[in-house]
Amino acid sequence: MEQTLFVINPNSTQAVTDAFDAALEPLRMAGGPRIQCLTLAEGPAGVQTQLDVESVTLPLAALVRKLDAEHGAAAAGYVIACFSDPGLHAVREATRKPVLGISECGMLTALTLGQRVGVIAILRQSLPRHGRMFGAIGLSGRVAAELPLDLGVVELSDEARTRERLLHVGARLRDEHQADVLVLGCAGMAAYRGWLQAELGLPVVEPTQAAAAMAIGRIRLNWHGA
Amino acid sequence: MEQTLFVINPNSTQAVTDAFDAALEPLRMAGGPRIQCLTLAEGPAGVQTQLDVESVTLPLAALVRKLDAEHGAAAAGYVIACFSDPGLHAVREATRKPVLGISECGMLTALTLGQRVGVIAILRQSLPRHGRMFGAIGLSGRVAAELPLDLGVVELSDEARTRERLLHVGARLRDEHQADVLVLGCAGMAAYRGWLQAELGLPVVEPTQAAAAMAIGRIRLNWHGA
Amino acid sequence: MEQTLFVINPNSTQAVTDAFDAALEPLRMAGGPRIQCLTLAEGPAGVQTQLDVESVTLPLAALVRKLDAEHGAAAAGYVIACFSDPGLHAVREATRKPVLGISECGMLTALTLGQRVGVIAILRQSLPRHGRMFGAIGLSGRVAAELPLDLGVVELSDEARTRERLLHVGARLRDEHQADVLVLGCAGMAAYRGWLQAELGLPVVEPTQAAAAMAIGRIRLNWHGA
Amino acid sequence: MEQTLFVINPNSTQAVTDAFDAALEPLRMAGGPRIQCLTLAEGPAGVQTQLDVESVTLPLAALVRKLDAEHGAAAAGYVIACFSDPGLHAVREATRKPVLGISECGMLTALTLGQRVGVIAILRQSLPRHGRMFGAIGLSGRVAAELPLDLGVVELSDEARTRERLLHVGARLRDEHQADVLVLGCAGMAAYRGWLQAELGLPVVEPTQAAAAMAIGRIRLNWHGA
Amino acid sequence: MEQTLFVINPNSTQAVTDAFDAALEPLRMAGGPRIQCLTLAEGPAGVQTQLDVESVTLPLAALVRKLDAEHGAAAAGYVIACFSDPGLHAVREATRKPVLGISECGMLTALTLGQRVGVIAILRQSLPRHGRMFGAIGLSGRVAAELPLDLGVVELSDEARTRERLLHVGARLRDEHQADVLVLGCAGMAAYRGWLQAELGLPVVEPTQAAAAMAIGRIRLNWHGA
Amino acid sequence: MEQTLFVINPNSTQAVTDAFDAALEPLRMAGGPRIQCLTLAEGPAGVQTQLDVESVTLPLAALVRKLDAEHGAAAAGYVIACFSDPGLHAVREATRKPVLGISECGMLTALTLGQRVGVIAILRQSLPRHGRMFGAIGLSGRVAAELPLDLGVVELSDEARTRERLLHVGARLRDEHQADVLVLGCAGMAAYRGWLQAELGLPVVEPTQAAAAMAIGRIRLNWHGA
Repeated sequence: MEQTLFVINPNSTQAVTDAFDAALEPLRMAGGPRIQCLTLAEGPAGVQTQLDVESVTLPLAALVRKLDAEHGAAAAGYVIACFSDPGLHAVREATRKPVLGISECGMLTALTLGQRVGVIAILRQSLPRHGRMFGAIGLSGRVAAELPLDLGVVELSDEARTRERLLHVGARLRDEHQADVLVLGCAGMAAYRGWLQAELGLPVVEPTQAAAAMAIGRIRLNWHGA
Repeated sequence: MEQTLFVINPNSTQAVTDAFDAALEPLRMAGGPRIQCLTLAEGPAGVQTQLDVESVTLPLAALVRKLDAEHGAAAAGYVIACFSDPGLHAVREATRKPVLGISECGMLTALTLGQRVGVIAILRQSLPRHGRMFGAIGLSGRVAAELPLDLGVVELSDEARTRERLLHVGARLRDEHQADVLVLGCAGMAAYRGWLQAELGLPVVEPTQAAAAMAIGRIRLNWHGA
Repeated sequence: MEQTLFVINPNSTQAVTDAFDAALEPLRMAGGPRIQCLTLAEGPAGVQTQLDVESVTLPLAALVRKLDAEHGAAAAGYVIACFSDPGLHAVREATRKPVLGISECGMLTALTLGQRVGVIAILRQSLPRHGRMFGAIGLSGRVAAELPLDLGVVELSDEARTRERLLHVGARLRDEHQADVLVLGCAGMAAYRGWLQAELGLPVVEPTQAAAAMAIGRIRLNWHGA
Repeated sequence: MEQTLFVINPNSTQAVTDAFDAALEPLRMAGGPRIQCLTLAEGPAGVQTQLDVESVTLPLAALVRKLDAEHGAAAAGYVIACFSDPGLHAVREATRKPVLGISECGMLTALTLGQRVGVIAILRQSLPRHGRMFGAIGLSGRVAAELPLDLGVVELSDEARTRERLLHVGARLRDEHQADVLVLGCAGMAAYRGWLQAELGLPVVEPTQAAAAMAIGRIRLNWHGA
Repeated sequence: MEQTLFVINPNSTQAVTDAFDAALEPLRMAGGPRIQCLTLAEGPAGVQTQLDVESVTLPLAALVRKLDAEHGAAAAGYVIACFSDPGLHAVREATRKPVLGISECGMLTALTLGQRVGVIAILRQSLPRHGRMFGAIGLSGRVAAELPLDLGVVELSDEARTRERLLHVGARLRDEHQADVLVLGCAGMAAYRGWLQAELGLPVVEPTQAAAAMAIGRIRLNWHGA
Repeated sequence: MEQTLFVINPNSTQAVTDAFDAALEPLRMAGGPRIQCLTLAEGPAGVQTQLDVESVTLPLAALVRKLDAEHGAAAAGYVIACFSDPGLHAVREATRKPVLGISECGMLTALTLGQRVGVIAILRQSLPRHGRMFGAIGLSGRVAAELPLDLGVVELSDEARTRERLLHVGARLRDEHQADVLVLGCAGMAAYRGWLQAELGLPVVEPTQAAAAMAIGRIRLNWHGA
């Protein structure tokens, strides 16, 4: 039986899904689970507020229950591909399959690549929400700082502008906050990872890739919660 | 204009609402805000899982928006009366009025009454969820331990059984974990507060009272978020 | 019987007492406790050093014992209105009534208004003392930074100069340290709270107001230590 | 070019290598890296002391350099399969390939399966060493407790005795320390993972499997340090 | 010029002073500072409450100022020999000479002897006070637990009873809380240090000795605060 | 019998040994232990990488065993004089005599001189390694920041350049990170301590002196591990 890892974009912007779909290509191995990327139809265009987060938790749980029902054991695991890890613990109750969040896994993976983690957010208003997550995971002491790009949707589609801001913010994290590893605090920026790492001379973690990698392990090992 | 503090029970069990309504009586002051206790019609019978938590967040936000719309400035503030603080940060986005959670305020108030906080939960399965909250607030270092009563709904309605368990768990927190202040990790146990405090010789915090007290201050001072 | 909350200024500068007396006006409710502000005659002109702190602890305890003796149950609670919380735990031993400190309550209240707390001190030399307090309360992990105004007594009476420094330091806390809520680290600056909040776009906590609000709740609920 | 992940047992006991070799079988995927398990010839029979740890660090670095030289890019990554993560950061300097430690990865993976991590060590004398590691990773706040099996080599080969101790220690971690996920603090106990999880009703992490899973992701994504 | 280190007992019980005077004998070196032990005349019989702490802070500062005035540079440093470190930071303002506290130095020294520190207090009521100190120093994460002997003054003079309790409490710290180093949380128990260490098989720190040792270094190096 | 404290430079640069040998002169007291400074012949010219650290751990243990064997009880204690504390815990297993590390003791001593510790490293690449140590000791919360001098060996021998960088980095730690005590993160900079303290107006800790002072206490008190 072929197993599938579903990587779900909680926002409804297909371009984001497409971006991480491409970025997950190296994790598609002949003998490993299929990786299927989905876009949550009910999601907002972007998850920018706590209300956006809350608006997708039950739809995510419902989608996962539906996939479980349709695919049975072939639905082997789930990744929630939004850096706010919306509904992570609720979805874990909705299925016995492995469920991983990209914020959680991005941060955990960063701990294996450096000592002081710098996080690059899109929007300033996300910082408190992320701060609560880092506290809940118990990793606040490893976060050098989180700084925002302060880019709106239109600017984000301007690649030159985005690169400029990534460089600026990444350099601040490195030089003012002594970060020695960076995490992209967003599901849609995989295309910049290698470039940013080369420019700054610091390892850069793309969290959707980090989460999918851990999920494949959990699937292959058949590790469910108890 | 008379101001009202709305204290909302996110579960649909009117008996819980009635219990904290009575417990809030001392906070109803002639010159202070009215305190009106509401039961969320859409809520589950009890908030026991993360899915229960998620199921009430948008209804809570909708209710608060509706109260704001109906009452205007007379709707002066909100308390979410469930120890999982469901939707706390989402509701804060839904209104500019003060919004406080009973878990948050119960824990913060406990810090002024003792050094090592012991928390009494109803169910074991709530411990990880509460642990994430304590981490998010940054208070994990002040929590001596949290232990569950392990009481189901039927047993909770048996007052003698509940007292027996409160005493047992409270004494373990005091004697094995060196707690010197206790927090009741539930909105519906106000009736036991004074008795438990006297029995154990430790201050006991009832979190709905703690939150309503802080909310009255915020209302009177007209402190909104920025 | 009418109950009184005594808010005690441990320094002997009446202007500071007058300032927070005015700021507490909104907390005087018809059915609530009276709020009486007192100046500690034995106090120094300002509490600037640890020796200043120590010089007021026993006088504070003596004053509280005297007020308890004179007023009996009508003396319903006490707030120590100095951001170093001098004698807080000693005064708690001197009376069974609620005793709250403005540093403690200002910080705890800030946790309900933001994720990263920036503190504005008057003098640089107070930072280590405040740092010990934040550590003792277990909140260091929530403090983004504390920065001093570096203003002496004369300069503090220059309102324009004070506003200039408050803006400068508050902006540094927001922009360099990512604070999203500020606490005024002094009992005498209530008059600037609303203005600073509006200027910086961040919630600003005035700690004497925060402490008096929590004390009223404790009084009305009749919550003593055990 | 076929890539190989080398999983190196720093002690010289082939039975331990064989045990995790078998446990890694599910992670051998057609399109993924080969997984080859090696035993460090120079290693002690078991890594029980800090001197044992130090005795293998340079040999591990030398072995990794040798494998890099022999295999070039086909040597795709390394796992150090000892719960003391000996030489982890030194080996990371010896190669640009991904290098992961099983203690680090076992703990990080546990954070995705529960809130309070209980760790089962073989020997009491390892606890301080592990405590230093947890502190260095910044995860001490997530560790509910670590308790030793107190089993010597002979007893460890007695499967019935080992099961008895695993159950006893695991139950203490769950019941006295409120752990909700367990980590096996040793590379050689994979055979007990599923059984212990079923017996205790808690997820149990086998750290060599956890590390190999993360390493495969790093290899496929071609994520080196910067 | 001969230099003197003054070790001051803030309580007025000469027997305690005599006990640590004897215990400091090995630190009296021909070429090192004299060590003179003093009893604070104004002190209470024992420092058991926060009010006791506060009652000695100004007398300690006054005594230190008097010794400085009388002896000039020959008064080379000060140790405050009470596990509550009363007035430590105030006395540091009263003199430019090194001033060390036994709680602080006992805990810091313990960190060099083990990973998890168990503290033995005399009285249960001291635990919150000590907890605040450990938080202020930032060491709470290294404290496995603190447990009280629960011995009153009369019982403390009963050596057999004291030994029995030390053994019981020390064993609980070792066996239930995994402490691997112990600190005697009191200035007057030096006579039991070696015996307790031998009985329990854990290093035991006597804090007055620890502080005097560090003070001698500071004196010899002529390290004042800046 | 005359006792000797051996202070061992794990790198092979005699000039470093000579520098701290001179700096330890004040700790040589008539009645105290001799202090003999040694250079590890096998050491690298400088300990700059984790591989450098690992390269000296076994030689250090061997040297200590040899000294123990040659001198018996006259070999009274050991200090490892490199800010990476190489082999500290391994050497503690190799002898029952006191063994102290300069990083550990420098940081602990700094806690008695200020609240926020700024650390001055030589090289940027040492920061993650030091960060792991601070985490392992549990002191990360007390570290304001660590910043590098970014000086290579040649520049370090340029005294004017070194002073310039010390001033610059020390001022950044004080002004941008609110450090109120500094630690020199290197064994070879004792000659700058007093000068830097005077220039910056902050206490500055020289870690080899700090460690030797604590070691003398341990030797005189005859405190071994248990």
